[in-house]
Amino acid sequence: MHAIVVEDKQLVLREVPDPTPGPGEVVVDVAAAGVNRADVSQRQGLYRPPPGAAEYPGLECAGVISALGPGVTGRQVGEQVACLLAGGGYAERVAVPVGQLLPVPTGLSLQEAAALPEVACTVWSNVVDHDCLRKGETLLVHGGGSGIGTFAVQLGKALGATVVVTARATKHDRLRALGADLVIDYTTDDFVLATRDFTAGAGVDVILDIIGAKYLADNIEALAPNGRISVIGLQGGRKAELDLALLLNRRGSVSATSLRARPRAEKARIVAAVQREVWPLVEAGAVKPVVHTALPLADAPEAHLLMESSDHFGKILLLP
Amino acid sequence: MHAIVVEDKQLVLREVPDPTPGPGEVVVDVAAAGVNRADVSQRQGLYRPPPGAAEYPGLECAGVISALGPGVTGRQVGEQVACLLAGGGYAERVAVPVGQLLPVPTGLSLQEAAALPEVACTVWSNVVDHDCLRKGETLLVHGGGSGIGTFAVQLGKALGATVVVTARATKHDRLRALGADLVIDYTTDDFVLATRDFTAGAGVDVILDIIGAKYLADNIEALAPNGRISVIGLQGGRKAELDLALLLNRRGSVSATSLRARPRAEKARIVAAVQREVWPLVEAGAVKPVVHTALPLADAPEAHLLMESSDHFGKILLLP
Repeated sequence: MHAIVVEDKQLVLREVPDPTPGPGEVVVDVAAAGVNRADVSQRQGLYRPPPGAAEYPGLECAGVISALGPGVTGRQVGEQVACLLAGGGYAERVAVPVGQLLPVPTGLSLQEAAALPEVACTVWSNVVDHDCLRKGETLLVHGGGSGIGTFAVQLGKALGATVVVTARATKHDRLRALGADLVIDYTTDDFVLATRDFTAGAGVDVILDIIGAKYLADNIEALAPNGRISVIGLQGGRKAELDLALLLNRRGSVSATSLRARPRAEKARIVAAVQREVWPLVEAGAVKPVVHTALPLADAPEAHLLMESSDHFGKILLLP
Repeated sequence: MHAIVVEDKQLVLREVPDPTPGPGEVVVDVAAAGVNRADVSQRQGLYRPPPGAAEYPGLECAGVISALGPGVTGRQVGEQVACLLAGGGYAERVAVPVGQLLPVPTGLSLQEAAALPEVACTVWSNVVDHDCLRKGETLLVHGGGSGIGTFAVQLGKALGATVVVTARATKHDRLRALGADLVIDYTTDDFVLATRDFTAGAGVDVILDIIGAKYLADNIEALAPNGRISVIGLQGGRKAELDLALLLNRRGSVSATSLRARPRAEKARIVAAVQREVWPLVEAGAVKPVVHTALPLADAPEAHLLMESSDHFGKILLLP
């Protein structure tokens, strides 16, 4: 088969061996694969695939099951699925543990379904499972125009939260169309002041953050009492001063997570919950996949340039 | 009545007006009041009582209800109670919201009951409610010989956790007698190495920390995957560098809380849960009050000197 491999920090299309399904795995013929910022880090040599994962980039895809591994029951060759992956999506075929398979939501194409697994599992596991975002609370999403951001805005609204996002001005209208209650241009405005003003001084209850160190102090400053910060990206660095007295004043928490490194059993639990709690919202149209563009697999280098430019709105897909 | 007031950072016994119970409050004649480290901070001018709280120190007591405020039902004058306070325990009488009253556990004296409310509510709200310590997990408690520490060790064991504590060597035997599985002398041993060694490299799941900045990096280093750190004291400073990449590697969280500043409704929820979940463990003898000494109210200055020396094991009480 063909896959995108990393050679000298470049993405190159190569002929590689087909994957074989291990126990409890299926092979999926990939129709579309999502591009994630973690793939850029992997290309740059900053983010090693976890042990046992395919070495090619790609954390999500959708496609058709073409082979069943030992011990797999309840799955059929020919079945359409969306997949959360530990790697290997940038390829014509990929082996996937059955616990990481999702049905294609009714009414969605395979391409649209490929835009959902990573963002749905990441946002649900942080904002819902860990941070327990409740109806009537305020969610602040940094990087609102990203795949994560466009999904988090919609999920937050579907859960009955007020949603505030930071994004470049060019993305504001589209974020409001997705339901954002307040959109802050982080290039010109102070998000702490803007959120304090918008919430009449109360602050925000949950923050989904892709920036890390650069935003840590401001994120704590922006918190409401009992507020929760989930850091899922470190685009603004890894080390920052933490003022525990200020965090204590807020009775706040800071967590940092990644989905990729979790054990299979944890991923399976998250995937099952996403199917149970999020897929109905997708099928009802309350949460829609937002696809910026779909490029041929061979154009993976262009896809990464686009990701690094942050000019996209929503997901970038690759089509084998 | 008599109460201990703070004058020029000193504790002085004075004649003061009796408290009057507001709506939803009772007045309790104090039999014994617990001394907490926060009282020392308050004496030093570092920790202001929250609005509406009595200005005298004292975050917990036990005694007898002597008056009912407007709208109070289901309580009787003469009833023995233990009380979580926002202040005012160092006095002959104190007004208490009914949501912060606990029964005196069967088999305990009023003095013993006075040793429980603050530590039980603090440990439960952090370790159980927030950090969800589960059976089979490992709990690390810093300052194991404190009132908080001696309670946390017992509660952790009662919940089926493995419990590791740090404490001075002179307290180790008594901590083992309370159930501690591993006791680390923090003056001579590295708790990160000791916990890694003890857990066969796995790390600890929950950390209850009274040190703050000085221990932040080591606490994160000591965490198991999905580990949770609850900071409830800042004896080792407030500001420290946080390595978010290391926290992300652990999928860990850092929270910082205090009980005193919480709104009454939150305190009432915590008190109700402690009565429901912790009091049965106390009545069964699985969790015992640990009282180091009980001194006359006028000896509050000596009580604070003892607290600051950290030579005590368990709670220090004051008797009006």
